[in-house]
Amino acid sequence: MKKIAVLLSGSGVYDGAEIHESVLALLEITKAGASYQCFAPDIPQLHVVNHFTGEVQQGETRNVLVESARIARGEIKALDDLNIAEFDALVIPGGFGAAKNLCDFAVSGADHEVEPSVKRFISQFSSAHKPVGFICISPVMIPKLYPLGVNGTIGSDEGTAAAFELQGGLHKMAQVDEIVVDEEHKVVSTPAYMLAGDILEAHSGISKLVAKVIEMA
Amino acid sequence: MKKIAVLLSGSGVYDGAEIHESVLALLEITKAGASYQCFAPDIPQLHVVNHFTGEVQQGETRNVLVESARIARGEIKALDDLNIAEFDALVIPGGFGAAKNLCDFAVSGADHEVEPSVKRFISQFSSAHKPVGFICISPVMIPKLYPLGVNGTIGSDEGTAAAFELQGGLHKMAQVDEIVVDEEHKVVSTPAYMLAGDILEAHSGISKLVAKVIEMA
Repeated sequence: MKKIAVLLSGSGVYDGAEIHESVLALLEITKAGASYQCFAPDIPQLHVVNHFTGEVQQGETRNVLVESARIARGEIKALDDLNIAEFDALVIPGGFGAAKNLCDFAVSGADHEVEPSVKRFISQFSSAHKPVGFICISPVMIPKLYPLGVNGTIGSDEGTAAAFELQGGLHKMAQVDEIVVDEEHKVVSTPAYMLAGDILEAHSGISKLVAKVIEMA
Repeated sequence: MKKIAVLLSGSGVYDGAEIHESVLALLEITKAGASYQCFAPDIPQLHVVNHFTGEVQQGETRNVLVESARIARGEIKALDDLNIAEFDALVIPGGFGAAKNLCDFAVSGADHEVEPSVKRFISQFSSAHKPVGFICISPVMIPKLYPLGVNGTIGSDEGTAAAFELQGGLHKMAQVDEIVVDEEHKVVSTPAYMLAGDILEAHSGISKLVAKVIEMA
């Protein structure tokens, strides 16, 4: 049975991992006959957003690992607990947490940096030539983690696509139900809620992404 | 197009709505060609549980509506904003939030009370003879909301089943992929994570529950 790591970035679209994308990824991994283990960095969130009002909850702090544990039903590990030999692939759901906690793209744009512990974590998969699937906004990290010219998609947003290329990636426009595959680097990406109008549309691309990642693993 | 209300109780299995069950319900509603609107009570959670350690986060408070908004991607309404004429049915995911925030079963057992605003909300569906689907532990509220002898299931846990019957309900044991239907009162229930060993098992019963609720609507 293939074992897939899932890297979460909190719990909630505006300050953490997008919940639908995360659960749909777990569903598709399990449907494919593989198993999953969730991971998250043990760091503070950039901030906490009240998802009812959309406002930042000033003065409140939450931890990415602790909040990600909500999606994982408590079954989650810190990044340092990765034993890369145990895993065949990695999937990274989106949500603003990917651009606020896993890297600082939401603040710095194309000049962003991947959070150091996150970079070490993902690099263990790329170094071992194990496939990684990036969902929604998380593909903005791809050019920071792979050689110049790596392929990926964030959908069709021109500003984000330009930032992807400024970092040295080769951006390919994609529809919500499509995936972009870089066979050489074993990188798969799909727009999900970068474009999805509803949960079914997000599901369509995530299903294909998970299937392709598992096929390459 | 049928429109289904979804009643959430926070965001996270130990103090709120179970996230997988909630997202799977939204997925199945959308797959069936219906639309959904999430609702939650604008009340404080009973408490906040650190889902990584399992410990109560002493001194921290969170609001059920605000946290539920994470699952709903911000598209959620307070219970008072229900216009019952717009809706065809209601689905209530489980998680400890159903037994801690929607009612106090987790504290009081069979003597529990349904939170007053929640009781008014659900009763608008039952009074209009519109179907209601109860998932996981949320069926413990059924006997408090329907006439004596109403049928329901919480799976196979004998203590919880006994509490269901003590309140005047007729409990039927069910497997994780089964639903129990009370045709007279239009009540459907399924065990989901009361029994599910993984997300696929939870999905199996929730799919059937949503399909039946929509069929009866």
